Amino acid sequence: MTTDLQQRIDFIKAIDSLKEVQRKTCLFSESRYENSAEHSWAVATFALTLADYAPEGSDINRVIHMLLLHDIVEVDAGDTLCYDEIGNADKAEREQTAADRLFGLLPTDTALHFRTLWDEFETEETLEAKFANALDRMIPVLHNLETGGRAWKENSVTFDQVISKNQKIAHSSQALWDYLYPRLTEAKQRGWLK
Amino acid sequence: MTTDLQQRIDFIKAIDSLKEVQRKTCLFSESRYENSAEHSWAVATFALTLADYAPEGSDINRVIHMLLLHDIVEVDAGDTLCYDEIGNADKAEREQTAADRLFGLLPTDTALHFRTLWDEFETEETLEAKFANALDRMIPVLHNLETGGRAWKENSVTFDQVISKNQKIAHSSQALWDYLYPRLTEAKQRGWLK
Repeated sequence: MTTDLQQRIDFIKAIDSLKEVQRKTCLFSESRYENSAEHSWAVATFALTLADYAPEGSDINRVIHMLLLHDIVEVDAGDTLCYDEIGNADKAEREQTAADRLFGLLPTDTALHFRTLWDEFETEETLEAKFANALDRMIPVLHNLETGGRAWKENSVTFDQVISKNQKIAHSSQALWDYLYPRLTEAKQRGWLK
Repeated sequence: MTTDLQQRIDFIKAIDSLKEVQRKTCLFSESRYENSAEHSWAVATFALTLADYAPEGSDINRVIHMLLLHDIVEVDAGDTLCYDEIGNADKAEREQTAADRLFGLLPTDTALHFRTLWDEFETEETLEAKFANALDRMIPVLHNLETGGRAWKENSVTFDQVISKNQKIAHSSQALWDYLYPRLTEAKQRGWLK
């Protein structure tokens, strides 16, 4: 029989390979592409740092919990660029299967708790899920703005795609969108976005 | 004048290079050494996963906040193996200087808040700081147990050093230490620890 503690440790071992899932975004230093584990740290820390910008009445700790867990399914399902239409066609199905397996390693109560958080992030209906998704969208935009639009150029991303994908940020925080929008317009003028 | 939001974004940019600080511990897959950013994600997620094992009356969110921030000073000060006596001689001074610079990038209230959390982790007196430190010690032990004691062997670590360093885990959670101790004894018998 696997003990409660062993199940939790087995989960931590299983999700360790999130460190080996490469994203399309480079580090700010451009020394290499980042991976989904270190991205998860960065965006959870971004949430803690931007707590004052969270929607009124939201629980920043729930946002942080979601962000720690939001990419775990990529251990099985891989990373899919948000502008990749083909990859996104079966993304939901691949990720649901991954969530079943990975959260299923945990004791039942924690499995259910984590799955609820992950589903909430994906569904993007609560204040916390909207803010978590806003930060998860904003971080790669900041990386692109700092690196001359590198990932945008490498993946032929258009200005319209970026606006369409990221304008939801305004629903969660107008201040964050007011920061980004003029910088995106400038990026287009510089030719970083088609 | 740098706006409040720009200061927070500048902080996130500055700490991004934590992804480039290499630790002495390998991934569970042994494909490479891990870095301090992805380690921070793993240990914060470990805290969320082991919330039921936290000391009674402690606040797991404070533990998670500390763990997200605990290694940030390594951006300037580098990683120091806990068994490295020479490296540890001036570690505190190097890390204090780094904390001054990095947290100093933030607006005053958040700078003070983050510095308080970091100091609390380092001082290891509160329930939350003890549990955060216990998890931060436990994770590399799990990596070593899974990889045939790889980092222990590469750094000539002895059984007595590991016991001396890690037995504090019992002060925070007897259950976690009861899990580790027999496995450490077995590791010694297998020759993974001198």
